[in-house]
Amino acid sequence: MPSSWGKIFRVSTFGESHGDSVGVVIDGVPGGLQFNLTEIQKDLTRRRPGQNLLTTPRKEDDEVRVVSGIFEGRTIGSPITLIVDNKNHLSKDYENLRHIYRPSHADYTYHAKYGHRSHVGGARASVRETIGRVAAGAFARCILEEELGIQTIAWVDSIGDVFANITDNLPKSHEEVDANDVRCPHPEFAEKMIEKIKEVRKIGDSIGGTIRAVVRNVPPGLGDPVYDKLDGDLGRAILSIPACKGFEIGSGFEGTKYTGSTHNDEFYLEAETGRIRTRTNRSGGMQGGISNGEEILIRAAFKPTATIAKFQNTVNDTPEDVQMKAGGRHDPCVLPRAVPIVEAAINLVLVDAYFYQRALQPEWLATWKRK
Amino acid sequence: MPSSWGKIFRVSTFGESHGDSVGVVIDGVPGGLQFNLTEIQKDLTRRRPGQNLLTTPRKEDDEVRVVSGIFEGRTIGSPITLIVDNKNHLSKDYENLRHIYRPSHADYTYHAKYGHRSHVGGARASVRETIGRVAAGAFARCILEEELGIQTIAWVDSIGDVFANITDNLPKSHEEVDANDVRCPHPEFAEKMIEKIKEVRKIGDSIGGTIRAVVRNVPPGLGDPVYDKLDGDLGRAILSIPACKGFEIGSGFEGTKYTGSTHNDEFYLEAETGRIRTRTNRSGGMQGGISNGEEILIRAAFKPTATIAKFQNTVNDTPEDVQMKAGGRHDPCVLPRAVPIVEAAINLVLVDAYFYQRALQPEWLATWKRK
Amino acid sequence: MPSSWGKIFRVSTFGESHGDSVGVVIDGVPGGLQFNLTEIQKDLTRRRPGQNLLTTPRKEDDEVRVVSGIFEGRTIGSPITLIVDNKNHLSKDYENLRHIYRPSHADYTYHAKYGHRSHVGGARASVRETIGRVAAGAFARCILEEELGIQTIAWVDSIGDVFANITDNLPKSHEEVDANDVRCPHPEFAEKMIEKIKEVRKIGDSIGGTIRAVVRNVPPGLGDPVYDKLDGDLGRAILSIPACKGFEIGSGFEGTKYTGSTHNDEFYLEAETGRIRTRTNRSGGMQGGISNGEEILIRAAFKPTATIAKFQNTVNDTPEDVQMKAGGRHDPCVLPRAVPIVEAAINLVLVDAYFYQRALQPEWLATWKRK
Amino acid sequence: MPSSWGKIFRVSTFGESHGDSVGVVIDGVPGGLQFNLTEIQKDLTRRRPGQNLLTTPRKEDDEVRVVSGIFEGRTIGSPITLIVDNKNHLSKDYENLRHIYRPSHADYTYHAKYGHRSHVGGARASVRETIGRVAAGAFARCILEEELGIQTIAWVDSIGDVFANITDNLPKSHEEVDANDVRCPHPEFAEKMIEKIKEVRKIGDSIGGTIRAVVRNVPPGLGDPVYDKLDGDLGRAILSIPACKGFEIGSGFEGTKYTGSTHNDEFYLEAETGRIRTRTNRSGGMQGGISNGEEILIRAAFKPTATIAKFQNTVNDTPEDVQMKAGGRHDPCVLPRAVPIVEAAINLVLVDAYFYQRALQPEWLATWKRK
Repeated sequence: MPSSWGKIFRVSTFGESHGDSVGVVIDGVPGGLQFNLTEIQKDLTRRRPGQNLLTTPRKEDDEVRVVSGIFEGRTIGSPITLIVDNKNHLSKDYENLRHIYRPSHADYTYHAKYGHRSHVGGARASVRETIGRVAAGAFARCILEEELGIQTIAWVDSIGDVFANITDNLPKSHEEVDANDVRCPHPEFAEKMIEKIKEVRKIGDSIGGTIRAVVRNVPPGLGDPVYDKLDGDLGRAILSIPACKGFEIGSGFEGTKYTGSTHNDEFYLEAETGRIRTRTNRSGGMQGGISNGEEILIRAAFKPTATIAKFQNTVNDTPEDVQMKAGGRHDPCVLPRAVPIVEAAINLVLVDAYFYQRALQPEWLATWKRK
Repeated sequence: MPSSWGKIFRVSTFGESHGDSVGVVIDGVPGGLQFNLTEIQKDLTRRRPGQNLLTTPRKEDDEVRVVSGIFEGRTIGSPITLIVDNKNHLSKDYENLRHIYRPSHADYTYHAKYGHRSHVGGARASVRETIGRVAAGAFARCILEEELGIQTIAWVDSIGDVFANITDNLPKSHEEVDANDVRCPHPEFAEKMIEKIKEVRKIGDSIGGTIRAVVRNVPPGLGDPVYDKLDGDLGRAILSIPACKGFEIGSGFEGTKYTGSTHNDEFYLEAETGRIRTRTNRSGGMQGGISNGEEILIRAAFKPTATIAKFQNTVNDTPEDVQMKAGGRHDPCVLPRAVPIVEAAINLVLVDAYFYQRALQPEWLATWKRK
Repeated sequence: MPSSWGKIFRVSTFGESHGDSVGVVIDGVPGGLQFNLTEIQKDLTRRRPGQNLLTTPRKEDDEVRVVSGIFEGRTIGSPITLIVDNKNHLSKDYENLRHIYRPSHADYTYHAKYGHRSHVGGARASVRETIGRVAAGAFARCILEEELGIQTIAWVDSIGDVFANITDNLPKSHEEVDANDVRCPHPEFAEKMIEKIKEVRKIGDSIGGTIRAVVRNVPPGLGDPVYDKLDGDLGRAILSIPACKGFEIGSGFEGTKYTGSTHNDEFYLEAETGRIRTRTNRSGGMQGGISNGEEILIRAAFKPTATIAKFQNTVNDTPEDVQMKAGGRHDPCVLPRAVPIVEAAINLVLVDAYFYQRALQPEWLATWKRK
Repeated sequence: MPSSWGKIFRVSTFGESHGDSVGVVIDGVPGGLQFNLTEIQKDLTRRRPGQNLLTTPRKEDDEVRVVSGIFEGRTIGSPITLIVDNKNHLSKDYENLRHIYRPSHADYTYHAKYGHRSHVGGARASVRETIGRVAAGAFARCILEEELGIQTIAWVDSIGDVFANITDNLPKSHEEVDANDVRCPHPEFAEKMIEKIKEVRKIGDSIGGTIRAVVRNVPPGLGDPVYDKLDGDLGRAILSIPACKGFEIGSGFEGTKYTGSTHNDEFYLEAETGRIRTRTNRSGGMQGGISNGEEILIRAAFKPTATIAKFQNTVNDTPEDVQMKAGGRHDPCVLPRAVPIVEAAINLVLVDAYFYQRALQPEWLATWKRK
């Protein structure tokens, strides 16, 4: 179960929901960097369950601790290990699921693949695995902010059929996004989304939605233009988040309806800065898999949570047809908590592309590194 | 410019449109396999330009030759190298583009990244790079067909605003898809798509579209469920095809409007076979990043070709604002030729997942290998 | 600081001597395997300091705990994380070394490389890092023993100028090796080696030595014959153990004096078994980087421990010339404790080669897997 | 058959002696570098067979051509592909070996591993494979010379029992080494070595030997100190050269006889330069797997060529016991031709370590890059 990511800034997560803890090892870390645990805890807190009524009532504080890689507040080049203990896992709650394959969960596929599985809380397929990604992503965020001034902001753009569809006046801060429980920066639509989630929760059901993200201040030149295209790597990183079923960069599926003459992003010389810019941004901030200096624009689709409090038909591992109804405490909608996970995925891809680029083209770094 | 792919069945492409040839090295190849060059040539011929009036009039026969890895018709475990010579490259045709960054092409981003670029025919960003992927993908296809009975079929599902939207009666053979020039297996919509392409070609413009693909007979258990999820790897592979801007697995963006109770795929026991099946397939053939034995269902978005025969504003490398109009011979629509490239991407991901799975779970192989 | 190893069975260690714990994440683990923690603890106990008077008086019990990857005694395919806490680290003991580069230690090079370092107990360069390798290696050993019947035995072959030079009647069990404190299976030479170590310890000095290893029952066909040759991978694994300065396979340096006619290993057909064997084994169990079924024979050189209780000239990080004398508790000779580390390195290389081979050649597995 | 090397500067070779050509793809190449084909040809010419009477009489000019990655004399970031055609392969010469496993060759192990093999000229196990490494190594050499002033020189240090044992007055140029046919810079010993080779050649036999190498001007800080130690990576690279059976760094096996007080390299401050130096260099230029700025000192053992013109006992693939005598034209001693291969291996390891270091620690680059 390869659980690693990145060519240079290499992230490996470990841990299951049934075990004692989950965590991450980050390798390929420069020495001498300030390490700010508060920043990492901040992102984990945005991700944690039990934040408000829209998410699962499971309360987990997800407190992170540093196991290796830091000395007197700074990195020493060693692998950084961060661990969050599992405090709230009630294995007995899952005993009735020991032999059952829950619909649209990974129970059956894990069993088919590995021959032996844990039935407790999703085990490795639990969204708790993303704790490691978010912790590592927060560290990546600090590096990108500090060295290049990059800012990554994601938000909930739709819940069910409520589409805010925010393509102008994109949010400028995480505070703007976090101003309401659903993490949609458009207050009116946020209200409707919250209604929609409460509605499905009341009947024991769940609902899907979409997330958009913008990344600002990415210098031109990040991304490797054949298989490791920036869009391909971003797509893979986001599609590897549980429940993600779709990914778009720039104009995405809508752009397929255009002609070349209406879709192309014409270049122009920005008078004030002397920089090469595009007037439109249907490319979503990259061409040929390499960033072009414009905002990176991403959209991702998340299916409704598979766990619902309703009777469903399924099979067990005998195998025989059975009926089941999930107990437990689950999110009626993963979207609000997925926002920091999407940001982490983006920042992990970008920091790795950045390190790779400065390996090959150090003179590039001199041009683009933040003064 | 990392140009390699795969954990075990490892594919590395090389070559630019301005050079003498393009090619691929395939490593991680079992010894003793029959090597059928005709099958590889078949896929390359489906990809080649100049096939019909819908594609570029450049005629390239794209004849492949074997440089290494084969002895007396079978593999010997060595890297297999396949090369296609560039016969039709007219570097002089591009002299007027030496200093110009074409809109929505990779000229500017390559220059920003590497400091030195070739202006001839897109160089490494040319779709000719995909020859290597298609050649390797054809070999992957043969292994998957032979050993697991897997069948991968892609088709053009929309051109511009003409949507065939084929979700039932999916095509059963490549012949069905290739029955018309646009590679849409629905004859009526194919007709409309062909009209649309001729229309934009007439005015020197281009048009985008979408491709769908189905993969049949994938055994449960392929894919690695954290970062190397099967959907993530398929997404990355397809998003790394030039001009691709979006990717969906199963219900994709549409699925975000559903509730859990209407989206979940209930399991049942198939009486005749004793196999565990799902009644619906909104998951698109995988759960938790692992194949579940149902058809894999994919959709991908391709933007309109950036090269158009119209005046456009842009900048040169001085830099200064300039106007340009492309000469040369180009595809008004890449979709028909992208069909075999999408199939190659899928087959490359699957063969690698298959080899990885049999490394870890050899008893799985005994169950699922085709008798 | 890349800290990972292996193409499929992938081992990543983390932790420094100054931190709370050291550990290892093992990825690429098959599901469904019995996981025997006792076997892992056994190897860690062979490696731990304070075993007897020949090693450091620091007492560390090196008790291992499982953090992830195991459910009800068997693997589930997830990354296995194993952690050993650092109980006996006295950071204050090292305060006088904060600014000093100890001769032939990694203090200066770490500082030159990363710009910031920990001066406590060698930090990441401490031999404590090898705990993770030994833990993972023990798990690899169990897989190799169970599935292929492979047996890996290392022993101390020389200390200083006392050479046992055991090339016949190689030890048949770990018990035979562990029969004395220096881990040399020749009792007479063992006695002399022990004397030698006591002698240097008395004067606050240290001493080097060599280790030999034999691996039995390796089936023909392991190892990848270009850059990932089995000898190359074994060499790298062993040379990456702290203090290792030399590596030989088979006839090694001595073999360079031979002619082809006296060095070649002639093949013959073993009458009883029908197996292809060699009469001599100067190749050391492999040809062209691939195992040939004969015993793998390895020799490795370890320099004397750099830490000694004598005044030495060196520089500090001002930098200026200074004198220093190490306090602390250290091994006068690392060889006895290096024996299980060498075995772990070998087993990690072999299990990865084994998994890779069964990925590519599953029919090979059918032939060679232990009945 | 993984045939790739390096984390960033990634080298993949392909081709067999029986095929049309051998070659190499180099990926992870910066854009904008001057590409000097003459320098590459120079190293290939040092490696080629038929140079003088000490090597095989097969004449191969090994002329290299560039297939991709270069535009108008400079790199463009794309994979660089270099190919040398096989002009002198006489497959018929090998027909009598079709079913025979030659002693101490890789015939049997390839067959055992892959199930199907080529019997022609060693196929992939032929030393012709190293053409790709030498070509890529020459490019690495140019980068290291140009950017860091690094100089790598190897020489033949012994042939059979004739040991020059050059540890002082190490050669200062390739010309010094190439002054005689055996590539030993000590004229007197060179004479004896040449005699020894002529002697074994006369009786159809072969002979082994050792190579030493020195690398100058390596800045402190290269190498990754856990599994990717500089000594481990150099060891693996050199042990993966055909016929290599042993590797030492610094004091090697001899150093095991020392005590810590006589082996440690004391640091001192070099008055003229302000640099931190060591008075002795038993460490061989690295500590903890990281370069320390002193000369890197390497020694490698090469067994006698397995091909000899004498009758030998062996088995065929029936299998049954047979006798054989090699025809063909072979090196009585590989050492002189191995000199440039060893240098290539070293330079490939160093350039990759250099690129990795500048990815992580760009400020390091500013300090150490040659003015």
